[in-house]
Amino acid sequence: MIENLVIVGVGLIGGSIGLAVKERGLARHVRGLGRSLDSLRRARDLGVIDSCHTDPREACAAADFIVLCTPVDQIALQALAYAPLCPPGAILTDAGSTKARLVADIESALPSHAYFVGSHPLAGSEKRGPEFADARLFVDRWTVVTPTPRSNADAVERVKAFWIGLSSKVRTMNPQDHDRALALTSHLPHLLASALAGIVSPDLLPLTAGGFRDTTRIAAGDPGLWTAIFRQNDGAVLDSLALLEARCAEFRRAIEDDDAPRLETLLRDGKTLRDRLR
Amino acid sequence: MIENLVIVGVGLIGGSIGLAVKERGLARHVRGLGRSLDSLRRARDLGVIDSCHTDPREACAAADFIVLCTPVDQIALQALAYAPLCPPGAILTDAGSTKARLVADIESALPSHAYFVGSHPLAGSEKRGPEFADARLFVDRWTVVTPTPRSNADAVERVKAFWIGLSSKVRTMNPQDHDRALALTSHLPHLLASALAGIVSPDLLPLTAGGFRDTTRIAAGDPGLWTAIFRQNDGAVLDSLALLEARCAEFRRAIEDDDAPRLETLLRDGKTLRDRLR
Repeated sequence: MIENLVIVGVGLIGGSIGLAVKERGLARHVRGLGRSLDSLRRARDLGVIDSCHTDPREACAAADFIVLCTPVDQIALQALAYAPLCPPGAILTDAGSTKARLVADIESALPSHAYFVGSHPLAGSEKRGPEFADARLFVDRWTVVTPTPRSNADAVERVKAFWIGLSSKVRTMNPQDHDRALALTSHLPHLLASALAGIVSPDLLPLTAGGFRDTTRIAAGDPGLWTAIFRQNDGAVLDSLALLEARCAEFRRAIEDDDAPRLETLLRDGKTLRDRLR
Repeated sequence: MIENLVIVGVGLIGGSIGLAVKERGLARHVRGLGRSLDSLRRARDLGVIDSCHTDPREACAAADFIVLCTPVDQIALQALAYAPLCPPGAILTDAGSTKARLVADIESALPSHAYFVGSHPLAGSEKRGPEFADARLFVDRWTVVTPTPRSNADAVERVKAFWIGLSSKVRTMNPQDHDRALALTSHLPHLLASALAGIVSPDLLPLTAGGFRDTTRIAAGDPGLWTAIFRQNDGAVLDSLALLEARCAEFRRAIEDDDAPRLETLLRDGKTLRDRLR
């Protein structure tokens, strides 16, 4: 049982955490911390948080558990700014889509009375704001928790227990492995969806069907958030892009050579993987 | 009113045409023509066609309207093989995803007593078979009809009326423009979905979320059908792929240069287009 949970950034993810925590009675008090009192009040009115805070000192004074649900380029700065304001033993985690750089940044300067363990719940959507919060967002989805050799073992267990309390499945990975995997399964798909949508002119939209709609859906995501993700995970994103470019070159060669068996093999490779997702 | 409609290839598309035609009473008799008596009988039992035919001579003897719903590399061969079996004035059309090559092939050798006008209903899914047929598949979707200077004007009007009868919206384009547009809006998305699915290893599947699922959905499509589409529309598909490769190179440069404004602009371009699809 958490006494005082602080959710930093009460959007789709932070809001869904708040709703789920309150529905399940996992914390006595849920505090929302953010810059905009307006959006904090909307979140409170939606039942997502109990109290609204724009002052970190006030929000963190009695915090025993803090979840940072802000853009990935802000998480490390906020963790380091808020940890000194927390009572001894406070645990911090996050919900960011990248891990290696921000975990290293936080571990390099975290005061010893507080603990940080990175998390990434594999859930969300291209939508934003507490209006889209969903108490069941994490149910049966995976959350990756990314301890390092410097992590406190009890803090790791409490962070895992937090996500399990939201009915998420939990696996642990080191931050670098997480970032390499997610570059392929999440960041590269976003780049491709955006690249594809970016080269199609509006007058062609009536000539699109379900395939284009699905393939480009995530391109509607927030450009600022994704700029930060690509910058935080630049190396792995570039490696994944190189793999994709090589694959596209194989398609190109097969089409140029009118090599039907090769084309069919390339297409079957994709189908085999995709059929396992059903 | 069509007297004898022949549907060649009674799968998802052909089956949906059959269901819709029968539901709306647009033809007195709906004949299914195919190679497998088994799947024709399944279609008949599902109410998709009235009679099953594996003999083209028998199916076409009294046909006034024929719709070819077979893979794009078979449409021209079948149109040219079946047209001579039809009574004078018979109209043939198709539902293929590519147009230029097959329309030219058919027009080069069609007997003068029959008429062909190409069609492409922008509807479908990665599923196959008459079991997935849906009488409402074409409702409020676009069908592109592709007349040429050699097309018979009455036949063009009858083909347009056929699709409008299924509650499809109809626009006409020349076959080359159709193929260039669809290379971008349909064939390239398929190539990308397949390339992306093809470079992800199965052990990463638990680390995928909705973005990967949507972006790769169409990779589950039939490899044989898509091999034929890429081969029929090779030039336009390669041109579209070049545009995408150039866009990926821009993303690469922006990430390598850690150029946040440029990255955000690229992402915003994609979002702007995608937001117009809602």
